[in-house]
Amino acid sequence: MITVATFADVRAASAGRVGLAPTMGYLHDGHLALFRAARAGSDTVVASVFVNPLQFGPNEDLSRYPRDLERDQRLAEQAGVDVLFVPPAEEMYPVLPKISVIIGDLTDHFEGARRPGHFAGVAVVVAKLFAGIQPAGAFFGRKDAQQLAVVRRMTVDLSFPIEIVPVSTVREADGLALSSRNRFLTADDRRSALALSQGLFAAAAAVEAGERAGSALEAMVVDAVGAAAGIELEYAALADAETVQPLSELTRDAFLAVAARVGETRLIDNVAFSVGADSVTVDRGDILTGPSVLEDV
Amino acid sequence: MITVATFADVRAASAGRVGLAPTMGYLHDGHLALFRAARAGSDTVVASVFVNPLQFGPNEDLSRYPRDLERDQRLAEQAGVDVLFVPPAEEMYPVLPKISVIIGDLTDHFEGARRPGHFAGVAVVVAKLFAGIQPAGAFFGRKDAQQLAVVRRMTVDLSFPIEIVPVSTVREADGLALSSRNRFLTADDRRSALALSQGLFAAAAAVEAGERAGSALEAMVVDAVGAAAGIELEYAALADAETVQPLSELTRDAFLAVAARVGETRLIDNVAFSVGADSVTVDRGDILTGPSVLEDV
Repeated sequence: MITVATFADVRAASAGRVGLAPTMGYLHDGHLALFRAARAGSDTVVASVFVNPLQFGPNEDLSRYPRDLERDQRLAEQAGVDVLFVPPAEEMYPVLPKISVIIGDLTDHFEGARRPGHFAGVAVVVAKLFAGIQPAGAFFGRKDAQQLAVVRRMTVDLSFPIEIVPVSTVREADGLALSSRNRFLTADDRRSALALSQGLFAAAAAVEAGERAGSALEAMVVDAVGAAAGIELEYAALADAETVQPLSELTRDAFLAVAARVGETRLIDNVAFSVGADSVTVDRGDILTGPSVLEDV
Repeated sequence: MITVATFADVRAASAGRVGLAPTMGYLHDGHLALFRAARAGSDTVVASVFVNPLQFGPNEDLSRYPRDLERDQRLAEQAGVDVLFVPPAEEMYPVLPKISVIIGDLTDHFEGARRPGHFAGVAVVVAKLFAGIQPAGAFFGRKDAQQLAVVRRMTVDLSFPIEIVPVSTVREADGLALSSRNRFLTADDRRSALALSQGLFAAAAAVEAGERAGSALEAMVVDAVGAAAGIELEYAALADAETVQPLSELTRDAFLAVAARVGETRLIDNVAFSVGADSVTVDRGDILTGPSVLEDV
């Protein structure tokens, strides 16, 4: 694996079918799952590590976002990455961008409503990675379900010839979805945070038992979070996977999303539903059997 | 030359260094100059013909915009085009785009102020052509000076590895800048329309004689247009070539632009100034010695 700092070096180091996994670094097993998925179908696997200031709001945690490049290099290499792209800010933003890229009403709700400007920042940086690296495939985690929808739509709307590949959420053995932000959780927070996945899993089981009403599914998440100490629920909602509009009935591909503040840390999670002719398939994510790589930082 | 309808076919037909010249068809010598410039430095020359509905306002001339594909094919082939990309609307917009791409204050003035949404439509379609064709170079006429600035900035802001090559305006022997819309001019309009280039040329001569004040240069255009019958001036302005902000003094690369309604037809024109350490170079455009190809439609 080589580490490079410019788009030109990424292109020079790439051959054949290029698979790209964009990250903000501080890698966890969720990122490693992206890299392994990319490895399986690509000649060159490119991973990027860039903490994108444009997607953080003024009151968000840009300055405390965790960073550890040496650790990221080691983990990326082990997971099969060929080219680690770690651009300095001057490469990504040689001038402050004047462009704004807005994906219509896909960002009206949920994370888009609570993090003004967040998805515009995501859209610009992902468009830059796509334009500058020209991958054939790009790998995004399902945990950021609204981001996945935004990236999919941007790809279609800008005619990028790129296959967007969603990768299942990776969870600790107890169900907690992996996130770089988990490292900010205290031991008490960590216990309380399990209410998110527990609520989602209860709703997933209800779907498998035939429940289709958004309100019923949402109530299960609300109840689970309400029963835990020290969590402030922001939303629990069933949403159309493509349009990211609230969905009252599970009649099309969707995700059930939750966002909550656990202690000082804001967490999101979801389960995804794929609606077939006679049945609904649930993607709860993949549960790690051993300790996650976040444990040995 | 082959004519293709899909991005995938353009990519399949392209090899080596690809040069792209986007057009709305109804080709004139200005377009042919783009194709010849592309031919000189490219292995594969791709020209697109697409009348982009997104860049026309509700009161603009989308429905009467002239079209003649057979003629375009003949002229493009003669000028060295290898691949003519003529996408149907379903290829360019398989779904109505939700994306909006705005290039900040570059579109606050001039054409941007008078044609709301125009440059957002241009930015989306050019971004699609760049993303879907992945050219190494792209060729744009200087006549659309604000469009050139918008495309340049979009290219930087989205990290497209594409060289944007400006090509001088092509003019009829009497100075009229070529435009597909010239075909709507009556004989009287045609005579009146010469006031635009005459005003710009007078200002260009003044710059060569040492004039640097924007107001003085603008006044020469205003006077020339004011002396002609049947023209309604919209603006005459000196603008920064990069930021497209009004410029009071010719101290950096700039263009002097004019827009006017001549009879029923809206025309724009400009001359470009390149400011060096001790002198200013003027690009008035290239004057045709014979009749333009628009004459033999």
